Amino acid sequence: MGQTPGEPGHGATGIDVPGARATIDSAGWRRRGEEGPAVVALGGGHGLSATLRALRHVTQRLTAVVTVADDGGSSGRLRREFNCLPPGDLRMALAALTDETEWGLTWRDVLQHRFSGEGELDNHALGNLLILALWQLLGDEVEGLDWVGRLLSIHGRVIPMSASPLVIEADIVDGDHRQRVSGQVAVASTRGRMENVRVVPEDADAHPEAIRAIDAADWVILGPGSWYTSVLPHLILPSMRRALVGTRARKAVVLNLSAQSGETDDMTLADHLRVLAEYAPDLRLDVVIADPSVVEDVAELSAVADSMGAVLMLRQVRTGDALCHHDPLRLAAVFRDAFDGAVGDITGPPRAA
Amino acid sequence: MGQTPGEPGHGATGIDVPGARATIDSAGWRRRGEEGPAVVALGGGHGLSATLRALRHVTQRLTAVVTVADDGGSSGRLRREFNCLPPGDLRMALAALTDETEWGLTWRDVLQHRFSGEGELDNHALGNLLILALWQLLGDEVEGLDWVGRLLSIHGRVIPMSASPLVIEADIVDGDHRQRVSGQVAVASTRGRMENVRVVPEDADAHPEAIRAIDAADWVILGPGSWYTSVLPHLILPSMRRALVGTRARKAVVLNLSAQSGETDDMTLADHLRVLAEYAPDLRLDVVIADPSVVEDVAELSAVADSMGAVLMLRQVRTGDALCHHDPLRLAAVFRDAFDGAVGDITGPPRAA
Repeated sequence: MGQTPGEPGHGATGIDVPGARATIDSAGWRRRGEEGPAVVALGGGHGLSATLRALRHVTQRLTAVVTVADDGGSSGRLRREFNCLPPGDLRMALAALTDETEWGLTWRDVLQHRFSGEGELDNHALGNLLILALWQLLGDEVEGLDWVGRLLSIHGRVIPMSASPLVIEADIVDGDHRQRVSGQVAVASTRGRMENVRVVPEDADAHPEAIRAIDAADWVILGPGSWYTSVLPHLILPSMRRALVGTRARKAVVLNLSAQSGETDDMTLADHLRVLAEYAPDLRLDVVIADPSVVEDVAELSAVADSMGAVLMLRQVRTGDALCHHDPLRLAAVFRDAFDGAVGDITGPPRAA
Repeated sequence: MGQTPGEPGHGATGIDVPGARATIDSAGWRRRGEEGPAVVALGGGHGLSATLRALRHVTQRLTAVVTVADDGGSSGRLRREFNCLPPGDLRMALAALTDETEWGLTWRDVLQHRFSGEGELDNHALGNLLILALWQLLGDEVEGLDWVGRLLSIHGRVIPMSASPLVIEADIVDGDHRQRVSGQVAVASTRGRMENVRVVPEDADAHPEAIRAIDAADWVILGPGSWYTSVLPHLILPSMRRALVGTRARKAVVLNLSAQSGETDDMTLADHLRVLAEYAPDLRLDVVIADPSVVEDVAELSAVADSMGAVLMLRQVRTGDALCHHDPLRLAAVFRDAFDGAVGDITGPPRAA
């Protein structure tokens, strides 16, 4: 059965969700040899990895659009030495998309392996160097990443949000003290309230391949992740914001499981959504996904989601341990339900059939 | 048809070569889905690469045993920073064994890619860093190299000649001046006559996997390559020399196409063979392969080969251009003939059938 994105339908719970395909069970896509919906996940770092590791269970048509504003660690050194895009977040996205065979999992370990020593290689991740080698051999960021993907048989595609490296800046207000802070590491680690978050150069273009993927998507996923430095940049870059507002794709936001130290210490999950609305007032969402165990006020969060056009899906998505990590399979189940339109409340007792 | 190494046979030219399988056409092994003879190639650097790129045409059972005495360039820096085997010659052997598809050839380019810049990565080859990463992840040299081979789908196996890095030393005599020189770079670049070439530590063991491969081989190939620093070390290490002398495998030496600058400037090809006999008096050879265009004195070379038990195969094995490189296909044809026992003289006019 073909996909019919955009066609009105009804979710399995009977809630009317325009565009959902009522008769297709996502888990069945794979069984039937179909590829699933075209999904674009935007973000960076561990948050994007969590989304990708979940999405690969429910679709084979997967594109990651990755922030390129990192200026710390191995990425920062490579960026300064070679004037290249910071490869670290791109590497993490690739590592999340390796094959789940022994071969693919070994590649994942190799990509993520960091040298440690007293010398010049200390802290460089092998995957960063592999990406850099392909960029130098091929002279093009996207072609280089596509070739890394082929060499490692990754599932899906990884695209930088911009063809040139970006710098994140913000005014950070702490009591009476206001300071202008520049660079992802500094922004993420300076305490205080963020104001006027921006990327430099302000007229940077989103990568055309990222725009193309968003335009052609059935679903776009934002978050989880460092809210100001991994998620928000996608809405700040004007051409990317226009693409996200204008695409006919449906949109889901996955909220975080814990506050980022420094960045968002004092923010509720509802505040997280309000930040998106502040920087992209035209953005309409379809689904907001949150774990009930970390929601401070369900009514408030639901109201803010509703004001942006979204249904709030409260679902257990964290792992069972003390770590605040998204469980790839639990999150995959929620994506499947969202793609099928099965977005109703399942936190109460089951209803009789 | 199965292989019967060691069984007496007759070559296609009618020359009696014990152990050659008269009725098997090597090119046919691949056509018939058979794997070819078990071949071990010993050496290092570009010379070993040339042998491997030829051998992969005539067998699928291929093991490279590689010198680990390099102390220059990227390998030297990694060896000093991480106290690891110098990976450079191992990388070149792996690169020679990648698949001949676009995927494999891209991997070859990536392995050989060197970063160039002003900074800390300058001159490091990506393949050296990949090998190092696997060594650090797995904690074992051979297991790490086997995994690099699996990740890159290489044909055959690459084994270091020793589990620990070696240092080459020599006394170099230039007129009245005699000096003790230490390190591969210094030995290869110091002018004069080599005497008393040795590896330090002198009691270093050959890697058990190398010994096992030599013991189980149908054919062992030495050379071409830097004679004193890539070829001879395999005969100097006592346990390796014993294995090479004792194996029932047949043995071929591939002579160089040009003098190594510094190392062997004043040596004829016959002198090259005499060096092997000097350091391994018990070594018996079966075949010596030389390109007729670079042989100074056929009678002398033939006599020295004969004194070591070998038939001299004079064959065009160089590329048609001005570069003194072995042509992989021409060299493959000679190996096929040698493995088939077709070692007779073909430099004269063809005989009537």
